Amino acid sequence: MRLPLLDDFHVHLRQGEMLRNVVPQTAAGGVGRCVVMPNTDPPVTTMEQVRAYRAELEACNTGIDFLLSLYLCPALTPALLRAAQAEGVVAVKCYPQGVTTNSKWGVSDLAQYDNLFAAMEELGVLLLLHGEVPSRAEADICILNAEERFLPELERIHQKFPGLRMVLEHVTTREAVACVQALGNTVGASITAHHLELTVDDWAGHNHNFCKPVAKYPHDREALRAVVAAGHPRFFLGSDSAPHPRSAKEGACGCAGVYTAPLLAAYLADTFETMGCLERLASFCCEFGHRFYGLPAPTGSLVLEKREQVVPGAYAGVVPFRAGETLRWSIRG
Amino acid sequence: MRLPLLDDFHVHLRQGEMLRNVVPQTAAGGVGRCVVMPNTDPPVTTMEQVRAYRAELEACNTGIDFLLSLYLCPALTPALLRAAQAEGVVAVKCYPQGVTTNSKWGVSDLAQYDNLFAAMEELGVLLLLHGEVPSRAEADICILNAEERFLPELERIHQKFPGLRMVLEHVTTREAVACVQALGNTVGASITAHHLELTVDDWAGHNHNFCKPVAKYPHDREALRAVVAAGHPRFFLGSDSAPHPRSAKEGACGCAGVYTAPLLAAYLADTFETMGCLERLASFCCEFGHRFYGLPAPTGSLVLEKREQVVPGAYAGVVPFRAGETLRWSIRG
Repeated sequence: MRLPLLDDFHVHLRQGEMLRNVVPQTAAGGVGRCVVMPNTDPPVTTMEQVRAYRAELEACNTGIDFLLSLYLCPALTPALLRAAQAEGVVAVKCYPQGVTTNSKWGVSDLAQYDNLFAAMEELGVLLLLHGEVPSRAEADICILNAEERFLPELERIHQKFPGLRMVLEHVTTREAVACVQALGNTVGASITAHHLELTVDDWAGHNHNFCKPVAKYPHDREALRAVVAAGHPRFFLGSDSAPHPRSAKEGACGCAGVYTAPLLAAYLADTFETMGCLERLASFCCEFGHRFYGLPAPTGSLVLEKREQVVPGAYAGVVPFRAGETLRWSIRG
Repeated sequence: MRLPLLDDFHVHLRQGEMLRNVVPQTAAGGVGRCVVMPNTDPPVTTMEQVRAYRAELEACNTGIDFLLSLYLCPALTPALLRAAQAEGVVAVKCYPQGVTTNSKWGVSDLAQYDNLFAAMEELGVLLLLHGEVPSRAEADICILNAEERFLPELERIHQKFPGLRMVLEHVTTREAVACVQALGNTVGASITAHHLELTVDDWAGHNHNFCKPVAKYPHDREALRAVVAAGHPRFFLGSDSAPHPRSAKEGACGCAGVYTAPLLAAYLADTFETMGCLERLASFCCEFGHRFYGLPAPTGSLVLEKREQVVPGAYAGVVPFRAGETLRWSIRG
């Protein structure tokens, strides 16, 4: 089965030694182009950081086409956006404060960014949303309904900036799928490989399946699978592959994040076969996303063959998704 | 604040070396009498095991009054129940298959036990229910709704055996609280110390707060707190204190269970103060349970004083609930 190289519209490539391990693994997983998340430490918020980060990524010599993003914060201005766009920045990522890795610099009130959103709408820079509100017990908000509670904000921004292309990242709920379907053509959603496989039962007591947003009910997973199987063109791959060292995942506390990059194409082929819609794999991974972003089609290609492989226990100290399990598909080497 | 020694109507005391550590810690936590869970390995299902287990528990010389239970399985007969009752067995515990620690011998169809339930109703032996159905994605059943989905079974048994005293153990949901409230006076519920504190956010990524049933939404915790604060006499303490070695809680996978025994009275005083209903502490821990069970009032007493203590990092290799946190109350030494 020949496919274009995968477009991964949401990936964490980290910094330093971790980056130097993860970028080649991402290429080996079948990715030819990706949107790189800016939640490094410190986050990417200046042109100097954009350039330095691109240089660090490209020094890996993998041939991956890196689409960079900026971290939404008060330092971003329309002028900065214009300059960044000229150097390959395609999006601004919004993290609500405190909901995931390195989100401590995140946003507590989106309304303050209306001027920036207007500039993004005009420039064609995308807004990528980590669509969860912070937990607040007194309002009955917890990690299980944090995504659903965010949806009114998505609707509000869409109504105010109907031309602003927005991606609700890593959707995990039936409600989010329905909301994105109901909104206009400028609103899309990314879906991870692991959320097509997991429910809450899979991460309870299993640290390596724990991520944010958490996997939820079976009916939520079913909604994700259904919209993918239907070939809805505004739902596309964003793996949210998020490497953490084993020591940060195992212990009394575990960081949120699932690492799928090294076998991304194989995981997805396996899952799409389970879902009974292998014929949707190419459009989900290699077509819908770049059309939504307004990017050219991918150039390279890969061949997936029906050859079993056992997922390694670790890649340079990072435990991947489904470690030790057998996948039915492999990339031809 | 002087209280009777606590009645803990649901505790895991384990076997062997773990038991020899846990039983004295349970006494130190303020417990004078407890219902000991039978999910040892193998589970307690014969008179020989009842006697051997009691001997092992009493060899610790703590003075605790151990009320034993049998593990519901086809080996239990009315004759065995009569003999067991004569030797201090007060209850039969029902574990649905596969839902928690050592439940692999558990029950897949409760209807087959109608004859036994009739004998228990007649004898006055209580039925203790781990009220969760096994997860089944195709029916949208997962650990978040497994308790709610069990409630029709509770209602069915209650209607068929209205004189059978049943305890829905470690209730965690608004729905379970409402169901027990609505049923007759032979149906009670136990509540743990940790479920009065935790929501899903507290165990996601925090292995030592992971237990079954899992803590759920803030509104669920609120329902537990409300029924306790209201002093409902059919809701009483069953700590479900469940020690696991640190190595079994930390790692890629973590066992389900929260260890509260060593500081049970102090945890509860702290939580009841937070809840603003310290005046309900004695009835919840030392009165409602023994009345429901039909047992005499506790004889010993303890004094809780407002003296801060830091929860130790571990007790003989077992990490307790709220390790490292400061509690406002301590038992006078």
